[in-house]
Amino acid sequence: MTVSQSSLLWIVLGCSAFALLFAIWLSRWVLSRGRGNADMQKISDAIQQGAEAYLARQYKTIAALALVVAVVLAVGYGVLRTSIPTDPVSSSTLLAIYITFSFLLGALSSGIAGYMGMWISIRANIRVAAAATTSLNGALQTALRSGAVSGLFTVAMSLAGVGGLFAVINNFVPPGLAPDVWAQRIPYLIVGYGFGASFVALFAQLGGGIYTKAADVGADLVGKVEAGIPEDDPRNPAVIADLVGDNVGDCAGRGADLFESIAAENIGAMILGVILFSQFGIAGILFPLVIGGLGLLCSIVGVMSVRTREVADPMQALNRGYYVTAALVTIVFFFATRWLLNPISAPDAWWHFFICGLIGIATSIAFVFITQYYTEYRYRPVLGIADASQTGPATNIIAGLAVGMESTVLPVITIAIAIIASYHLGEASGVAQAGLFGTAVATMGMLGTAGYILAMDVFGPITDNAGGIVEMSKQPEEIRNITDRLDSVGNTTKALTKGYAIGSAALAAFLLFSAYLDEVRNYRGGVPIKVDLARPEVFVAGLLGAMLVFWFSSLALTAVRKAASSVITEVRRQFRERPGIMLGTESPDYGTAVDIVTVGALKAMIAPGALVVLFPIVVGIVFKQFGVGAEAVAAFLMIGTIAGILMAGFLNNGGGAWDNAKKYIETGAYGGKRSDAHKAAVVGDTVGDPFKDTAGPSLHVLIKLLSTITLVLAPLFI
Amino acid sequence: MTVSQSSLLWIVLGCSAFALLFAIWLSRWVLSRGRGNADMQKISDAIQQGAEAYLARQYKTIAALALVVAVVLAVGYGVLRTSIPTDPVSSSTLLAIYITFSFLLGALSSGIAGYMGMWISIRANIRVAAAATTSLNGALQTALRSGAVSGLFTVAMSLAGVGGLFAVINNFVPPGLAPDVWAQRIPYLIVGYGFGASFVALFAQLGGGIYTKAADVGADLVGKVEAGIPEDDPRNPAVIADLVGDNVGDCAGRGADLFESIAAENIGAMILGVILFSQFGIAGILFPLVIGGLGLLCSIVGVMSVRTREVADPMQALNRGYYVTAALVTIVFFFATRWLLNPISAPDAWWHFFICGLIGIATSIAFVFITQYYTEYRYRPVLGIADASQTGPATNIIAGLAVGMESTVLPVITIAIAIIASYHLGEASGVAQAGLFGTAVATMGMLGTAGYILAMDVFGPITDNAGGIVEMSKQPEEIRNITDRLDSVGNTTKALTKGYAIGSAALAAFLLFSAYLDEVRNYRGGVPIKVDLARPEVFVAGLLGAMLVFWFSSLALTAVRKAASSVITEVRRQFRERPGIMLGTESPDYGTAVDIVTVGALKAMIAPGALVVLFPIVVGIVFKQFGVGAEAVAAFLMIGTIAGILMAGFLNNGGGAWDNAKKYIETGAYGGKRSDAHKAAVVGDTVGDPFKDTAGPSLHVLIKLLSTITLVLAPLFI
Repeated sequence: MTVSQSSLLWIVLGCSAFALLFAIWLSRWVLSRGRGNADMQKISDAIQQGAEAYLARQYKTIAALALVVAVVLAVGYGVLRTSIPTDPVSSSTLLAIYITFSFLLGALSSGIAGYMGMWISIRANIRVAAAATTSLNGALQTALRSGAVSGLFTVAMSLAGVGGLFAVINNFVPPGLAPDVWAQRIPYLIVGYGFGASFVALFAQLGGGIYTKAADVGADLVGKVEAGIPEDDPRNPAVIADLVGDNVGDCAGRGADLFESIAAENIGAMILGVILFSQFGIAGILFPLVIGGLGLLCSIVGVMSVRTREVADPMQALNRGYYVTAALVTIVFFFATRWLLNPISAPDAWWHFFICGLIGIATSIAFVFITQYYTEYRYRPVLGIADASQTGPATNIIAGLAVGMESTVLPVITIAIAIIASYHLGEASGVAQAGLFGTAVATMGMLGTAGYILAMDVFGPITDNAGGIVEMSKQPEEIRNITDRLDSVGNTTKALTKGYAIGSAALAAFLLFSAYLDEVRNYRGGVPIKVDLARPEVFVAGLLGAMLVFWFSSLALTAVRKAASSVITEVRRQFRERPGIMLGTESPDYGTAVDIVTVGALKAMIAPGALVVLFPIVVGIVFKQFGVGAEAVAAFLMIGTIAGILMAGFLNNGGGAWDNAKKYIETGAYGGKRSDAHKAAVVGDTVGDPFKDTAGPSLHVLIKLLSTITLVLAPLFI
Repeated sequence: MTVSQSSLLWIVLGCSAFALLFAIWLSRWVLSRGRGNADMQKISDAIQQGAEAYLARQYKTIAALALVVAVVLAVGYGVLRTSIPTDPVSSSTLLAIYITFSFLLGALSSGIAGYMGMWISIRANIRVAAAATTSLNGALQTALRSGAVSGLFTVAMSLAGVGGLFAVINNFVPPGLAPDVWAQRIPYLIVGYGFGASFVALFAQLGGGIYTKAADVGADLVGKVEAGIPEDDPRNPAVIADLVGDNVGDCAGRGADLFESIAAENIGAMILGVILFSQFGIAGILFPLVIGGLGLLCSIVGVMSVRTREVADPMQALNRGYYVTAALVTIVFFFATRWLLNPISAPDAWWHFFICGLIGIATSIAFVFITQYYTEYRYRPVLGIADASQTGPATNIIAGLAVGMESTVLPVITIAIAIIASYHLGEASGVAQAGLFGTAVATMGMLGTAGYILAMDVFGPITDNAGGIVEMSKQPEEIRNITDRLDSVGNTTKALTKGYAIGSAALAAFLLFSAYLDEVRNYRGGVPIKVDLARPEVFVAGLLGAMLVFWFSSLALTAVRKAASSVITEVRRQFRERPGIMLGTESPDYGTAVDIVTVGALKAMIAPGALVVLFPIVVGIVFKQFGVGAEAVAAFLMIGTIAGILMAGFLNNGGGAWDNAKKYIETGAYGGKRSDAHKAAVVGDTVGDPFKDTAGPSLHVLIKLLSTITLVLAPLFI
């Protein structure tokens, strides 16, 4: 069974184009909704202004950093004149051009995806608020479809970028080389795309994450705790900054995060496909992109199928949409594996890979359940934290930290089973050396529903913002009830996406690691590389990798704390100097608070970001002196990844659990709002904020960045 | 240069015997001090009674568990009939007997060492309190020499156990085997000793750690926070339990911890010495024990040299004693390496190993400085936490967590340099394959001062108790000042020991890991083992190892929280039912509080303890099905160790930093005692309690237990 390369590329690019067009249509649908009354518009305009101003400055900073890296890459590859012994055609200059160009394209596309996420959400928030004045279903659909604009756009851009780069470079077959051989070379040339995407994602997620939580923590500590005014009270000078944060942190940051996940994991899977070229031909290389493209169509159907009755739990409606998407992706997998992974020499191979895909889908569903168990107040963990709040903030904190640590257990066991099962299925498929490809297919199974997951995720900050607008414009109780219900669902979907993101990162880690090893083997002219922990340098490099995770987390937490304390100082100053604010006779100066967070977040993101980019390079260069540069970097990457997966799970779930323990007490348990237990729970919630929205999500990107940077810089370490 | 085996054993056993006798002499010296007035004696008696009752019950539980393990070992080794192909003599039954016997001896000795630590400290506390009524120097010397009783006893017991086992088994040369060959076999037969010691240490440290912090947290939360009475106030029903905790947790627990560290690391180093038998002969195998024995003499001189002027900082006196010890150990190393590690074939070898020893000594000094930097309020980290306390408990917690995470950086870099430098020195020594032996010698350099370090450590809880007795018996202000000064120094020395313990664990981890690999190679008839992270099973096993650390920490934190909440309930009940307590007209019922913590701690230690013992066995057996049992266990062990080192550093230093941030505010900063900043700092201190005294120290033991259990159970996984 042979499949033509161009027909596969047409499927990928066609699906991506369709999804982009559909996203445009959806955004027109969203923009055609009503914008509510003048009060709402005033608030929404302020959010829009703050978010756009921040993102413009942030991207300016990131662009400057990216250009520096691009120059280093171009010069480095040019000077090193690295070449692959077995493939003399693609040497030095040409390699430098392809790597640098794909880096810049990846960085640019990631920036655009992040910007789009924010663009739609600052326009959607007020429309959801306005829709809430008439019906729950209207508000739900508006929020989810706005999220889908961002979700579809991000996934489609990522696929179109990788697929398009492949299609373009495919035309430049070097003279004297068979097109087939050239096609197998391309995945290595576009690793820069993944690096560019993760580079931008790291700073976007860090900057946005610091921004959103510095504003949130600062606003809460002075507003709720000191002044005793409710959340989103218009008298709080930091309240607009807080709402801006949801957009630049959660929407733009998560968009960039998933963009780079998809790009990096697709490129990694394509490299593993190259190894099996003799069996699958080009179909093995392009299989990941085809699944991604068809998965987009499934996500579109899923999103459009969501509707809710006015009295129902909106989470059920979102879950139904997710199951629709997952079911459709399963069907896609059945036909795609039969069609593309079905060599004549191994007639049973396809269903082995189909099961690998099922494992990936099942893994993502398992993560959804596990995350819910650890972060919803229907279950033991969160109830335990609420219970511990009765004896004060200290026991609340201890309980939350313990829940966060415990929450790493089931995900790790799930991942362990998924990796080993898909690897052995791949090995048993009858295709030689297809074990790793089995894990790659499982990763694709997880990523197949990415469009829908991301739509659900962006749903969160949009409804959060809508709730803020409704609160600040003093809408009647029943409208607040609707946005409160959606906001609470949004908290759950945000937690789910983080579970999903870390799950796919864990599954993909092994895949990207294998791609790195394969690349090193190529550069060494086919000599395989052993990452033997019994060598002291390899052990030490692994120790350093795990240490990086602790160091980075520390920097991220400190960044939020410092930026928050400048917000606190500013809000206190306004309260002190303008007593009319608290009386409601004077309007606070929102703009200054926004400016302070903007400057603080941009300054604070540099140190942790630079650490992650520079540390692996230093490790590689230092250990190269001992003749084990590539091995040391491999151990650094893998053990750093392991530590990152655990730390991210700890931070994300701990933070989510604290948040919902507070919400549970607010339902009236242990004395309800304003009780001592509630005060203790607010402390936990505040500690959890930078856990779950700054350090945790940034670690997802860190894991991927370690992989892509080592893929790109491998020649340096050999 | 040949050295006779018996002369070396005489040195080891002679030094150990001398140190034991000296410890007895010291204890008589301590016991001959005055016991203060009747008020003091009443309190001291209550502490003594509670501590002895707890330890008796704890050891009963541990003994039962240890017997189960012993039966499993005996039957397992007997049934498996494991034998080493190259060494047919030591097969099945004999192996089962040696392993089981050494396990039981290790368990028993560890129990005795822990008991001794508590025995002297519950007698020393009142004598230090009494000495404080006359002079600072008297109190300081009494406390340090009491600590030295425990320190010398522990180290000497450990050396005598390993050395004695070697000497005894040495007499049972199997027929037809050369004595030389038999001597090389012995280190593998006594690995059970290390396992027994770490098995008991794990439960002793866990049980004691849970006890001490449950009592402390419980007493503080109801006493200081709710009732507003000072620490150690006699009206608090949990105050005796709190003081008991210092003895059973800090003294008995840490004693057992260091006992097993020394045993395990000596056995590991001896196994590495076997590999170099052709070069060093028996001297290479017994070198670690000789250094340990001579190091004991150095520690004795160090302890006896300590004296202070009444107006000086007592910490300086302790530091001087430490430097004296370290300088003497350096001299010992110079002569010992020249004498024992000086083969004719490699005339430069000895000074390479001498430098390895210096690296170990330098590493331990570096850890002392780093720990001080992160936990004393003269430096930026603790001052930052104090500063963050101004904006409430949430920012205090975030700051403390960030400091804890950051505090892993310098220790890891130190360890990285120490491992690589000593490995390369070993390789460059001219002795073939001596790289690993270089790291072993560095570890011995760190352990050389163990006796003095442990004396300083036990100094901490003794002075803490003395302060409690002075406070509760309402002594005049100037006496309290003396015990307060000593108590504050004791906090520092406790933090230092933890840094030292985790540093030596990190350095030794690589050594024990190598010993395991060597043992596996032997069982496989000489086929070397590769722990290649590129294999999915190996990667997954590593992921599980790191996860175990998070899971265990979660269980330890939860255990303290649950046991503390039962204390809180009890204290509240007493305050409610007997209002006379707060008025001072009625005496609280200390005994019930002690009983409640005792039962709670014993119950709570089972789950985390069982997890650590069973998890590696499950991993080994499951992965054996995939044909990679030994490799998977190796990755599990190593990556679990890496995660454990980082997590322990995070917990220990974070906890210490919170504690001293509170103390700094109590000196008057940010409003001093009773200010809002102080209240926030108390929350951080309470969170830090189970960090630094339960979970953190238990992780040290966990790391070593993973090593010893894998050493003992290796045949099971092959």
